[in-house]
Amino acid sequence: MTNYIVWFTFAGAVLALLFAVFTAKKVLSFSEGTDKMKKIASSIRAGANAYLKRQYTVVLVFFAAMFVILLAMAFFGLLTYFVPFAFITGGFFSALSGFIGMKIATASNARTANACREGLNRGLRVAFSAGSVMGFTVVGLGLLDISIWFFLLKNVFNLGPSEVSSAMLTFGMGASSMALFARVGGGVFTKAADVGADLVGKVEAGIPEDDPRNPAVIADNVGDNVGDVAGMGADLYESYVGSIISASALGVAAFSAKTHINDFFAMAVPMLLAAIGIICSIIGTFLVRTKENATQKDLLRSLSRGTNFSAIVIAIVAFPIVWICLGGKESIGLYFAILAGLLAGVFIGQSTEYFTSDTYKPTKHLAAKSETGSATIIIGGLGLGMLSTALPVVIVAICILIAYFASGGANDANLGLYGIALSAVGMLSTLGITLATDAYGPVADNAGGIAEMAGLEPEVRQRTDALDSLGNTTAATGKGFAIGSAALTALALMASYVNKVKEVAGAEVDVNFNLTNPTVLVGLFIGACLPFVFAALTMESVGKAAQSVVIEVRRQFREIKGLMEGKAEADYASCVDLCTKASLREMVLPTIVAIVVPVATGMVLGYHGVVGLLAGATVSGFLMAIFMSNSGGAWDNAKKYIESGVHGGKGSEQHKGAVVGDTVGDPFKDTSGPAINILIKLLSMVSIVFVGIVVAFSIF
Amino acid sequence: MTNYIVWFTFAGAVLALLFAVFTAKKVLSFSEGTDKMKKIASSIRAGANAYLKRQYTVVLVFFAAMFVILLAMAFFGLLTYFVPFAFITGGFFSALSGFIGMKIATASNARTANACREGLNRGLRVAFSAGSVMGFTVVGLGLLDISIWFFLLKNVFNLGPSEVSSAMLTFGMGASSMALFARVGGGVFTKAADVGADLVGKVEAGIPEDDPRNPAVIADNVGDNVGDVAGMGADLYESYVGSIISASALGVAAFSAKTHINDFFAMAVPMLLAAIGIICSIIGTFLVRTKENATQKDLLRSLSRGTNFSAIVIAIVAFPIVWICLGGKESIGLYFAILAGLLAGVFIGQSTEYFTSDTYKPTKHLAAKSETGSATIIIGGLGLGMLSTALPVVIVAICILIAYFASGGANDANLGLYGIALSAVGMLSTLGITLATDAYGPVADNAGGIAEMAGLEPEVRQRTDALDSLGNTTAATGKGFAIGSAALTALALMASYVNKVKEVAGAEVDVNFNLTNPTVLVGLFIGACLPFVFAALTMESVGKAAQSVVIEVRRQFREIKGLMEGKAEADYASCVDLCTKASLREMVLPTIVAIVVPVATGMVLGYHGVVGLLAGATVSGFLMAIFMSNSGGAWDNAKKYIESGVHGGKGSEQHKGAVVGDTVGDPFKDTSGPAINILIKLLSMVSIVFVGIVVAFSIF
Repeated sequence: MTNYIVWFTFAGAVLALLFAVFTAKKVLSFSEGTDKMKKIASSIRAGANAYLKRQYTVVLVFFAAMFVILLAMAFFGLLTYFVPFAFITGGFFSALSGFIGMKIATASNARTANACREGLNRGLRVAFSAGSVMGFTVVGLGLLDISIWFFLLKNVFNLGPSEVSSAMLTFGMGASSMALFARVGGGVFTKAADVGADLVGKVEAGIPEDDPRNPAVIADNVGDNVGDVAGMGADLYESYVGSIISASALGVAAFSAKTHINDFFAMAVPMLLAAIGIICSIIGTFLVRTKENATQKDLLRSLSRGTNFSAIVIAIVAFPIVWICLGGKESIGLYFAILAGLLAGVFIGQSTEYFTSDTYKPTKHLAAKSETGSATIIIGGLGLGMLSTALPVVIVAICILIAYFASGGANDANLGLYGIALSAVGMLSTLGITLATDAYGPVADNAGGIAEMAGLEPEVRQRTDALDSLGNTTAATGKGFAIGSAALTALALMASYVNKVKEVAGAEVDVNFNLTNPTVLVGLFIGACLPFVFAALTMESVGKAAQSVVIEVRRQFREIKGLMEGKAEADYASCVDLCTKASLREMVLPTIVAIVVPVATGMVLGYHGVVGLLAGATVSGFLMAIFMSNSGGAWDNAKKYIESGVHGGKGSEQHKGAVVGDTVGDPFKDTSGPAINILIKLLSMVSIVFVGIVVAFSIF
Repeated sequence: MTNYIVWFTFAGAVLALLFAVFTAKKVLSFSEGTDKMKKIASSIRAGANAYLKRQYTVVLVFFAAMFVILLAMAFFGLLTYFVPFAFITGGFFSALSGFIGMKIATASNARTANACREGLNRGLRVAFSAGSVMGFTVVGLGLLDISIWFFLLKNVFNLGPSEVSSAMLTFGMGASSMALFARVGGGVFTKAADVGADLVGKVEAGIPEDDPRNPAVIADNVGDNVGDVAGMGADLYESYVGSIISASALGVAAFSAKTHINDFFAMAVPMLLAAIGIICSIIGTFLVRTKENATQKDLLRSLSRGTNFSAIVIAIVAFPIVWICLGGKESIGLYFAILAGLLAGVFIGQSTEYFTSDTYKPTKHLAAKSETGSATIIIGGLGLGMLSTALPVVIVAICILIAYFASGGANDANLGLYGIALSAVGMLSTLGITLATDAYGPVADNAGGIAEMAGLEPEVRQRTDALDSLGNTTAATGKGFAIGSAALTALALMASYVNKVKEVAGAEVDVNFNLTNPTVLVGLFIGACLPFVFAALTMESVGKAAQSVVIEVRRQFREIKGLMEGKAEADYASCVDLCTKASLREMVLPTIVAIVVPVATGMVLGYHGVVGLLAGATVSGFLMAIFMSNSGGAWDNAKKYIESGVHGGKGSEQHKGAVVGDTVGDPFKDTSGPAINILIKLLSMVSIVFVGIVVAFSIF
């Protein structure tokens, strides 16, 4: 029967990809609008293509080097020969997700702007369809990769369940590495351009956002695509795949000692859930539509209708799936674990929205702090972000306890850990549609930029703004899912690491990671420090890159005669080029840190230290990611709230203070915060791949 | 022989207090200068006295309530009857340390300013003597409390070693609670006044710092005393006492199974080290003097001469002490643990100095970021602080490993944990003199304020500025010791908690705190979250209080006719009163959080969850404390560096950006950061005191 499951999973993947192709065709059938719009869109496209091409060249060198290292390790018997190849495919599909997402996004921005000339609903349809292409490409490619490998390893190479799951875990490392490159590189690009454009254009020269006189304006729009789209695509590909393969691996561990169920069934449950989630998501997309003259609330309701429908259906369907695959004994508890994950994702999203949306108190109060200047709004935003970690911690804590104990962890720890892993899969099962609602934001943002630059009627900009502002809310929810699932998946991967240690070092090895053991404690310190270092490195990168953009924009304003009067054209390409160079230079160090530190720690402290490191990084990474995302989101929306006319409105001293807050928040929420989510999983993946070396050669 | 040790320790305590009295008399023999200076000094004194009086009234209510709760718990057999009384004395002596420190500081500020009229060396002597009074009062009272209780419990009540150490641990909770009140209350006061004075005075009205026309100027100077002096006194009293009693408790655990040594000796080693440290520190103070026309470097060298001498002597003398008390077998390893702690303190201090002093690259680069505005300097400072966590983590990690394994932890975990605890004692053994060099900073700062307000000659202000700027460097070193010792002490207390659990719940209880246990993990999440929440609460408090000061100062500028022209006097008292009210209101919630959360977590998750919580809080608290202290310190010094004439100098746009950074850094480095140090120890103390309830009634 497992063969049927593989075919079903494969079919789900193909269905998702076909739906993506179908939707893409629909989007491309729309017109790009006026010649000016076409020209702008094509500049953005050219910049984004050039960036991705150069990024992938750099990444290729890294992957080639890692491939050789892994091959050498396989040669010395520290790995199987599947690992280097699995690593490559993980990276390849992750990159492909980002690439396709970016392609469709840069093809739809002008089309969305043009559709908005005809009406809000039409604009929503185009932007949301573009988001859907991205969403279903990510889940389709993810599941495709998983089902193909599963088939190959099991049916062609005839490996047993634990070997299959081990090999599959390692392609997560490829996906995570690629995701980190894409997130950090894209994040640095987009924020360097954004900060640079704002600091000189808005603050110094006093020209509006997206003004064509600003030399960094095209770079800013390119940034939305390479950061918020391509970066996010690679990132969520990694989350999706990571949650499924870690759950599969723990499923094998949980059921290998049980005779009433084939281990492969336990492995297949997460894949099956994902496949069903795709079907639910596709149906959900058809529910997203709104009437003309829709209010902000109507728009949000139409999006929620789609995501809620998908979530409710999967919540119902999950039960028979688990029941059929695993039988009655364990399935009820595991079903509750999946439900807990689904609900935890929703609640974390709501907590994010509460802390960052200007319809609630925290962001309103933050905006009020602009009355006493930029320092108080900065202090307020930092405090808000730190405080906002408490609720998600409680939510995740409850989710962990329910998932573990409902699954029967009290009697069988492996079952409990499988439950935790399944809760992450539950959280991400409807990723197809949640990612669609998330990825449509940058498309709408770009559409607004094009409307401004092409000089379209003000009501077009109003409509794109309505779509964009809604995008901020859905992005908040999306972030909730991304961060929550990252924590749960990282814990599942940590458990997989422990299993791997047992497998490599033998059953009698000491796998007690007692907190009073100093190597565990020291590992905990080092791991908890990593997100801080990582955030610092990425922020520093944005700062450096932004400073070079500032200098270039100032130079152009000074040297290009007639630019400010609109008589001469700015040299957009030089800013795009600057951002590209800077982001590629800056994305290498953080990734190397993420790979070298866990291996080096393991070589010194042994696997006890590594488990400490993984726990420390997961906990502190979870907190830092929420802190930074929410501070950044709140500053952004506090600024927008002030722009809506309160506390002095646009151009006032208060607004200037809020712009400072927003600028600080940019790298927080769009570079460092999301990159930390990837970091904590990459650390585990790297540890799992290199476990052989650590067990064989560590000092302690 | 233990009786001799008690007497020796007692004698050391008395010697410290006598030296403090002797030094205080010397300070008071100097003149306070002109009538104007006397008047200003007396306003500051009055404000500080009024604040402390009201603070202690609030604190009294808390202590009375806790006393009743503890008494009730003793009645139900959950504690011994010693606990409530020990709790009270811990709080009392901590408060007394702060009180005496504040008294001498407010008595020496005008005297230092007046001495600076005669010369730099004379100014240094007065300010440093004032710092010494504080330093030796803290260590004297700390050791007095310890030796009296030790004597009472052992010789009067005839308790065994483990009962003595248990009872003594609990007076740490009194000291920590008091310290938290003092740090948070004082920190909110000082930063609300500082931020309020700067934002309206310097930024809006454009008048210089410490200008008598600024209505918040007296409050600002009062703040230095109640925050940086009284707060720090209570804080370091707690650190000192906490490190000694946790080491004593672990000493008993380590040697209770060994027959060749009386357990009381293992308990006495930390006390003896502290007593010898006092003698070394007293000798060290006599080496602090400088020539006239001394440069900044000479000043620093003269201070370093004193602290280095003391540290070297204690490093040598520690060996025979350990040898005599514990015999040859274990003593060599434990001696290395002490040395490791001593060195780790020095290295963390140097790392702090590297990241925050404007003689090194990081702060210079930070200052350069002012060229592109306040947003980039904020991003840069946050990044700098986060990055600066890496080196201290490595230092503490190495210290933990050396302390544990050199002491023989590989064969006997209790010995290793005792080693970790002793390394904290080693780090703090010369606290008498390091605190003196730390506490003299605010005195010099105040002296500068008085010189300005009293209109003394410019060279006086130059001299006080030289002293003050040096104070920033020594404060950085002091912070290194405070943070490093807090982490090590917190780990020692966590180990003591585990021992307590065994004692209360019986020997067969499961004391395995495996990281794959979900209750441990959930505890880890909650614990790691606490420093974030705590930082948020304290920053929010400063923000709120500062905003009320801003409004009041603006009101006075508007309503008091002739104030700006210097014809009318500002209403200083109203600002002092505002700050007092605000800080007392704000200090309650954080303390309650720190007490309620570990107990509530224990009631739900059991003691496994509590150990997770303590580990999480220690690790994340260590990182947050360093991050916030160093970001704040670097912003402060970047601003001063710009004021020295680079990047546009005082009054330039760059300077304004740097002032924003400094303002954000104020609550970072002087309120939230230091309070976190106390928090992580208080959490352990609370857990230890309430262990009976948790073991008896927890859900999991």
